[in-house]
Amino acid sequence: MELQSCFPIWDKLSAVQQDTILGSLISRQVKKGALIHSGSTDCTGLLLVKSGQLRAYILSDEGREVTIYRLFGRDICLFSASCMLRSAQFDVTIDAEKDTDLWIIPAEVYRRVMEESAPLSNYTNEIMAARFSEVMWLVEQIMWKSMDRRVAAFLLEESAIEGGDRLFITHETIANHLGTHREVVTRMLRYLQDEGLVKLSRGTVELRDPKGLTALRDN
Amino acid sequence: MELQSCFPIWDKLSAVQQDTILGSLISRQVKKGALIHSGSTDCTGLLLVKSGQLRAYILSDEGREVTIYRLFGRDICLFSASCMLRSAQFDVTIDAEKDTDLWIIPAEVYRRVMEESAPLSNYTNEIMAARFSEVMWLVEQIMWKSMDRRVAAFLLEESAIEGGDRLFITHETIANHLGTHREVVTRMLRYLQDEGLVKLSRGTVELRDPKGLTALRDN
Repeated sequence: MELQSCFPIWDKLSAVQQDTILGSLISRQVKKGALIHSGSTDCTGLLLVKSGQLRAYILSDEGREVTIYRLFGRDICLFSASCMLRSAQFDVTIDAEKDTDLWIIPAEVYRRVMEESAPLSNYTNEIMAARFSEVMWLVEQIMWKSMDRRVAAFLLEESAIEGGDRLFITHETIANHLGTHREVVTRMLRYLQDEGLVKLSRGTVELRDPKGLTALRDN
Repeated sequence: MELQSCFPIWDKLSAVQQDTILGSLISRQVKKGALIHSGSTDCTGLLLVKSGQLRAYILSDEGREVTIYRLFGRDICLFSASCMLRSAQFDVTIDAEKDTDLWIIPAEVYRRVMEESAPLSNYTNEIMAARFSEVMWLVEQIMWKSMDRRVAAFLLEESAIEGGDRLFITHETIANHLGTHREVVTRMLRYLQDEGLVKLSRGTVELRDPKGLTALRDN
C-alpha cells in the first residue's frame, strides 16, 4: 500500500510538501493489544493504518472505557496528533485490536504542511467531521438507546468487521466498548439468548438471528 | 462589532476573499426562542453571533433534547453549514436562548473561500476541534457522571452565563439541556435543596451555596 492512497488530495501537494511528509515518515508494526497513544501525555503524531485495526476510546478516572471509533486500513487517526490543534482539549487513548502495520507522520511536520496547504487543511477538516459524526452517533446511542439495542448494534458491527457470525469476545471486552459493567452485558446477552438471537458459550458469542438483531437495533 | 473580530485570521485573506465574504453577508435579528436551524433539512450557512445566545442540541425521534454546546458573542457556528462538509453526517438543531443579533455567511460562499485559503481552512479546523472538545466533555458527563453532578454543573454554568445566583428557569428546560426527564430534574433539585445547596420557588432556582455545588460537580 502506498501512503498516497490515504490522501486523495496527495497530487495537490507541492513536490516539496510531498517530500517533507515522505521524509518524516515512520513505519511501525504493533502487536494486538499494544497501547499506541495515551491521552494528553504524548503527541504521537498522525497515524495511518496500513493494515490491522485500532480502537480509540476514552477512559474515566476509575478506569472505565468507552469506544469512540475504530480505524481500519487507509484510515487516518487525527487525535493522536491533537497537540497540533490548540482547541482540541480532550484525551483519547488508542490501542491495537489486531496486529497492525502503520505509518506515523510527526505532528509538527503535518501541522507545518497543513498550515500552508489549503487542500491538506480541507482534507483534515473532512477527517475531523467524519470522527465528529461518529462521536455524535455515540451520543445519540448513549442518550436515547437502551442497552439491549446497543449490545445488538455492537454485535452486528463486530460481525461485519470479522466477516462471520461467531465472535471470539469476552463480556468484559464488550462492556469496555460500550462503557458499561460486565454484569450488565452478561445480563443482556442472556436475554438475547432467551430470545433466540444469540448463542453463548465460553469466550464466544454466536449470532443466531442477525435479522432479529438488526430489527432490535433499528427499533 | 466588526465581522473581522470573529476571524483572527482575517488579515491573511486576500482582498478578493474578504470582499467575497463581506458581499455575501446577511444580517439577522432573532427573538428569544426562535428556531434558527433545523437538522439536515436546511443548510443555513455559517452563523456568527454578534450578541445574544444560541443553543445547539440534538433531538431524539421522541422529541427529547440534549444540549451539545452554546454560542455567545463572537462565536461561530459551523454545523449550521455542515452541508459544506461531506463527512458531517449528523443533525444539529439551533435555537436562540436570548434575543440574538447575528450574521450569516452562506455555506457555499464560505466553502469556496475555505477551499483556496489555507488560513481560513486551518481556522475552521480549530473551530471544529473546539466543538469536538465540548462534545467529548458531554460524552464524559453522560457516561461517568451521576445526574446530581450534572445538574450541579449545569446550574453553575447558567449562573456564570447570567452573572447571578438567581436563575429564572423551569425544570423542563433543565431537563431538555441535560437530555433527561423533568421528573428526574425535580427530584435532583429537591435533593440539592435538602442539602442546602439551592432554594426552589416557582420558576426560579437560587444557588445558595455555589462552593458546595462546585465541590459536588468536581467530586
